[in-house]
Amino acid sequence: MENKTQKSIQKSLKVIPLGGLGEVGKNMTLLEYDNKILIIDMGLKFPGEGSPGIDYIIPNTSYLEKRKKDIVGIVITHGHYDHIGAIPYLIEKVDKNTQIFAGGLSKGIILRRHEEFPGKQKLNINKIKNGDKISLKPFDIEFVRMNHNIPDNFGLFIQTPVGNIFFTSDFKFDKNPVNEPATDFQKLKSIGEKGVVLLMSDSTGAEEEGFSLSEKDIMNNLENIFQKSKGRIIMSTFSSLINRIQQAITLSEKYNRKVVIEGFSMKNNIEMAKNLGYIKMKESTCIEAKKIKSFPDSKITIICTGAQGEDNAALMRIANKEHRLLRFKPNDTVVFSSSVIPGNERSVQTVKDNILRQGTNVFHYKMMDIHAGGHAQKEELKKMIEMIRPKFFIPIHGQYSMLIEHAKLAEATGIPKKNIVVAENGDVVTLNKTKISLVKSKVETNYVMVDGLGVGDVGKIVLRDRNVLAADGIFVVIAVIDRKTGRVKGSPDIISRGFVYLRESQALLAETRKRTIAIINKASGGQIVNWAHIKNEVKNKIGGFLYSKTERRPMILPVIIEV
Amino acid sequence: MENKTQKSIQKSLKVIPLGGLGEVGKNMTLLEYDNKILIIDMGLKFPGEGSPGIDYIIPNTSYLEKRKKDIVGIVITHGHYDHIGAIPYLIEKVDKNTQIFAGGLSKGIILRRHEEFPGKQKLNINKIKNGDKISLKPFDIEFVRMNHNIPDNFGLFIQTPVGNIFFTSDFKFDKNPVNEPATDFQKLKSIGEKGVVLLMSDSTGAEEEGFSLSEKDIMNNLENIFQKSKGRIIMSTFSSLINRIQQAITLSEKYNRKVVIEGFSMKNNIEMAKNLGYIKMKESTCIEAKKIKSFPDSKITIICTGAQGEDNAALMRIANKEHRLLRFKPNDTVVFSSSVIPGNERSVQTVKDNILRQGTNVFHYKMMDIHAGGHAQKEELKKMIEMIRPKFFIPIHGQYSMLIEHAKLAEATGIPKKNIVVAENGDVVTLNKTKISLVKSKVETNYVMVDGLGVGDVGKIVLRDRNVLAADGIFVVIAVIDRKTGRVKGSPDIISRGFVYLRESQALLAETRKRTIAIINKASGGQIVNWAHIKNEVKNKIGGFLYSKTERRPMILPVIIEV
Repeated sequence: MENKTQKSIQKSLKVIPLGGLGEVGKNMTLLEYDNKILIIDMGLKFPGEGSPGIDYIIPNTSYLEKRKKDIVGIVITHGHYDHIGAIPYLIEKVDKNTQIFAGGLSKGIILRRHEEFPGKQKLNINKIKNGDKISLKPFDIEFVRMNHNIPDNFGLFIQTPVGNIFFTSDFKFDKNPVNEPATDFQKLKSIGEKGVVLLMSDSTGAEEEGFSLSEKDIMNNLENIFQKSKGRIIMSTFSSLINRIQQAITLSEKYNRKVVIEGFSMKNNIEMAKNLGYIKMKESTCIEAKKIKSFPDSKITIICTGAQGEDNAALMRIANKEHRLLRFKPNDTVVFSSSVIPGNERSVQTVKDNILRQGTNVFHYKMMDIHAGGHAQKEELKKMIEMIRPKFFIPIHGQYSMLIEHAKLAEATGIPKKNIVVAENGDVVTLNKTKISLVKSKVETNYVMVDGLGVGDVGKIVLRDRNVLAADGIFVVIAVIDRKTGRVKGSPDIISRGFVYLRESQALLAETRKRTIAIINKASGGQIVNWAHIKNEVKNKIGGFLYSKTERRPMILPVIIEV
Repeated sequence: MENKTQKSIQKSLKVIPLGGLGEVGKNMTLLEYDNKILIIDMGLKFPGEGSPGIDYIIPNTSYLEKRKKDIVGIVITHGHYDHIGAIPYLIEKVDKNTQIFAGGLSKGIILRRHEEFPGKQKLNINKIKNGDKISLKPFDIEFVRMNHNIPDNFGLFIQTPVGNIFFTSDFKFDKNPVNEPATDFQKLKSIGEKGVVLLMSDSTGAEEEGFSLSEKDIMNNLENIFQKSKGRIIMSTFSSLINRIQQAITLSEKYNRKVVIEGFSMKNNIEMAKNLGYIKMKESTCIEAKKIKSFPDSKITIICTGAQGEDNAALMRIANKEHRLLRFKPNDTVVFSSSVIPGNERSVQTVKDNILRQGTNVFHYKMMDIHAGGHAQKEELKKMIEMIRPKFFIPIHGQYSMLIEHAKLAEATGIPKKNIVVAENGDVVTLNKTKISLVKSKVETNYVMVDGLGVGDVGKIVLRDRNVLAADGIFVVIAVIDRKTGRVKGSPDIISRGFVYLRESQALLAETRKRTIAIINKASGGQIVNWAHIKNEVKNKIGGFLYSKTERRPMILPVIIEV
C-alpha cells in the first residue's frame, strides 16, 4: 500500500508558484516530476509603502536549496523585470551549467542587466524563437509566440508524463499588433486539439470586462495627436514597453519629426532593441537633446521615462526645471502613454499638475485610449479556455481577487469546479491524468528582500524599526555614570532626529535631561546595579514623558557609559 | 491718481483659496472686501507617502494673524473633515465671539469632534437651514441646499458690493437622492436670473465624462444584492457617507435584517445623525454584535468602516481574524461601497484578497455601480455654468489638472477666457464689476502639519530626517575619549536600528569599531582638538565604509564623550 502511494506521488506532477507580493506565480513557477524541476521565469517585484528602503522582493528559493542537480533548466517567457529581474540574485541557486532559454530580446535584456552585477556566475543562455522545441527531460517544451506589450513573449506548450500543459505567459489577443504578427489562433486551437491536461493562464485582466484594446486603436489615437500637435510631442512611457516606443518612432518618421530619447533606461533599452532588430528606426531619425534647437518644435518628438511620476526620471526633471537641457513650453504636448501602477497615483498627479502649470497640453490614458494594458480581459480569457479546452485549470499571474474572478470565468466556460485550483505562492498543486489537488504542506515563501547589497538580510525586525523611525523619529539619551557612585556625571546628551525641531524644543530637552538623571540615580541607588533594568526604566519613563508632551512615540535609545 | 488707485483697490473684492495638498480652496477660502474677511470652511487634509508620522495638514492662516477683528464670520458648507476638520486648530485665530454658521448635521459633527479637544476655545455655532439668509457685512449670504453625499450641504449665494457670488460647495445634481430632496434647479436658475458676477464651482469631477450616477441607481444595485444574498451582508463604507449608510439601513429594514454597526467612527456618526434626525432607523433594527447569533445569517447586515483598507478599521480586523466577536463565513457577502482614495489601492486590494481567501463573496464598485462619487461630472458642471451664467469663473476644489479641465469646460460653455481665473492656494484673485485678475503677490501657504500635539512644529528638516531614517535606518557610534591623551578609551559602542540585522552583522560592526578608533585617534592627534571636525570625519568615513559594504546610507550619528 505504501509503495503504491509513493508510486502514485512519484507519478504525479507538482506545480509550485513562487514569487511575492500579491501576484501568484508571476515571478517564478516550478514544475516538478520524478524529482526533476523545471523553472519558469526568475522575476522580481517592487515593494510598496510599508517596506521603506527595500529595492526589490525576489522569490524565496529555499525549496531549491540542495537541489541544484535536479534542475533541468530555466525557461523565460519574456523580458519584463517581473519575469527576469531576479536572475542575478538567483542564478547561484542552480548549477553553473544549467541552461536558460529565452527569446532574442529577453536574452539581450538579461545580459545587459547582468553586466550590472560583475562577479556573478556567468549565464548560459540559449536564444529560442517561435516554434522552437527543446527537451529538458521529462519536459518537452515548445515556445509559442503570444502577444503582450513587449516582443518575444512566449507561451509554453509543455509535454509531460501526466499530459500536456499550456502556460500562457502574460498575454493578450491582438489582431493588429505593432511590429509583430497577430495572435496565431490556429496554433492555439491546434494545441487544444492535441489535448491539454492543464492550462495555467494569465489573470491580470480577469476583473476587466470585454476585450483589451488593440494596439491598432492606440496607434490611431496617437496618430491623431501627431496630426494635430503644432509643437513638440513628449511621449512618456515605460522603457520596457518596446512596442509603444516603436509606435512613437513610426509616427515620428511618418510626420517628419526627429526623435530625442531621454532617460537612462530608455536610451539603453532602445539602443539594445534596435541593435537586436526589435525596434526599427532610420539612423537619421534620432538626434541628441543638445541638437534640439536646430529643428522647429513641430519637427521634434521626445521619448522619455517618467510616466509613473518617478522622482529622477526625465519627465519629472523637465517638469521641475531641473533637466540639463530641456524645459516645457506652452505649445508642447505631453502624452502619458501608460497606465498608473497602483501606489503611484499621487506622484503621477503631481507631475501632471506641474506640467499643466507650465501651460503645456497633457493627454493621459483616462482622456483618450493612448495606452492598452498587456493583458487579456474577460472575453479573451474565455476564448483562451475554449480553444485550449483543458481538463484542469490554474489561474496564475494576478492578485487573489483576479484569480478568483478567473476561476469563476473558467467554471462558467465549462470546467468543473473540482478541476480548478486557485493556488497561492508556495502552494504545491499535484496532478496526474485524472486528478488535481492542493497538497497541505506549503513551500517556504517568506519575502526575500533586496536592499543594496544585502539579499534576505532585511527581515521583519529591521522593517518594523524603519517604520517606527519614519513615524516619529529617534531619541537617543546618553548618560555617563560614575562607576563608583552609580550616579550620573554631568548632564546627559540627547540626540534626536525626525522627532521635533530641536532648536525650538529646548525646554523639553532640559526637562528630559533632568528626568533622566533622576531616573538613573534612583534606579542605580541599590547595591547591585542592573543596567538592563535602568535602560528599560529610561526608555519607558522618558518615552511616557515625551508622549505626554507631544503625543509622539519616537524610538528611545538609552546609552549608559560607565567611567 | 494714487487716491483713485487705492479707491479702486478698496472697491475690489479679494478671493483667496487656502488649504493644502493639491486641491485648491478645498479646505478654506477667504473673501475680503473693504478689509472685512469672510471665512468659508476650515478643513484639513490627510497627508500621503513622504510625510511619515504626520496626522493632518491644515490651512496656513498666517494671512489672518493680527486680523482677528476683521473676520466677520465663518460659514461651513458641509460636515466632511476636509471642510470642518481644522476648526479645533484654527478657531484660536479668530475672535472668540466670531460666529460659525453651519447646517444641523455639520454642527453636530463639529461639536462632537470638538469634544476631543478639551481646553480649546468654545465654539459659537449658529444652526442654519436651506433658504436661511444671514448678513455678515459687507456680505449677505443665503444658504442654498445642494446634493452631495452627506445631508446639509449648502452652496452659498453671497451678495457683495461688487456683485453676487455663487460658491457651489462640493456638489452633484441628483434627481433621485436618498433621504433629501432632489436638486432644486428652479432655485439655481433664479440665482442666475438675479445676475452673478462670479461662480466658484467644484472641479473634483471635471475630468469625468457625462453625468454622475444617481443615488437611485446605487440603491437599485444594492437592493439587487440584498435580494440575492443568502447569508450576512457586510456593508463597508466611509463613516461620513451618511446617505449611503441610510441606504443600507433602509434596505435592511425592507428585507427584515437586523443591523450591527461596527467601528468607532461609524457608531459615533450613526448615533449622532440618528439623534439629529438625519438617519432614519427603527429602534428595533439595530442590535449589538454579541447578539448576532440570535438571528439567522440571512437576517443580519453589518455596517462597518474599513473600505479603504485602513489597518485598524472593523473590516480589516474581521478579515485578519482579530475582531473580538466577528469572523467571515463563506456565505457572507461583503460590499465595498466607496471609491478608493488615491494611495489606498494596495491596502484595499489586500483586505479584499484576505476576505476572498475566506471564501466570502465580494462586491466592489468596479464590478457594479454600488458607489457614486459626490461630485458633478462634465455635463453637470456645464449645466451649472449655464444656469448661473456668471460673468467671471473660478474653478475650485480639485487637483490642478481638474481645474484646467473645468476652465476649458467653462470656456466651451461661453465664458470668455479672460474672465476665467485658475488660481492656486495662496493666490489672491481680485475682482470688481468689470474685471477679474490675479494679483502678483501670494499669501503664505507653506504646509502646516499636525503631528500629535504639535501644530506646525514639524517642518521640512524633521520630515527629511524621517524619510532618511525610513530608508536605511540609523547608526549611532559612541566613543569615549580620554581628555588627557585625546585617544579612544575601550571599544566604541554602536547602536543601530533599521539598518542591518545586528546579530548577523558582527564582523561589520567589529570592523566599524576598529575604523572609528583609528579615525578619532588620528584626527585628535594634534594640539588643538576640534570635536566638530572629528565628528564629521567619523560621519563621512564610517558612512562611506558602510555604503561600500552594504550600499545603504543609514543616518550616522557620532557621539563623542570626553572623560
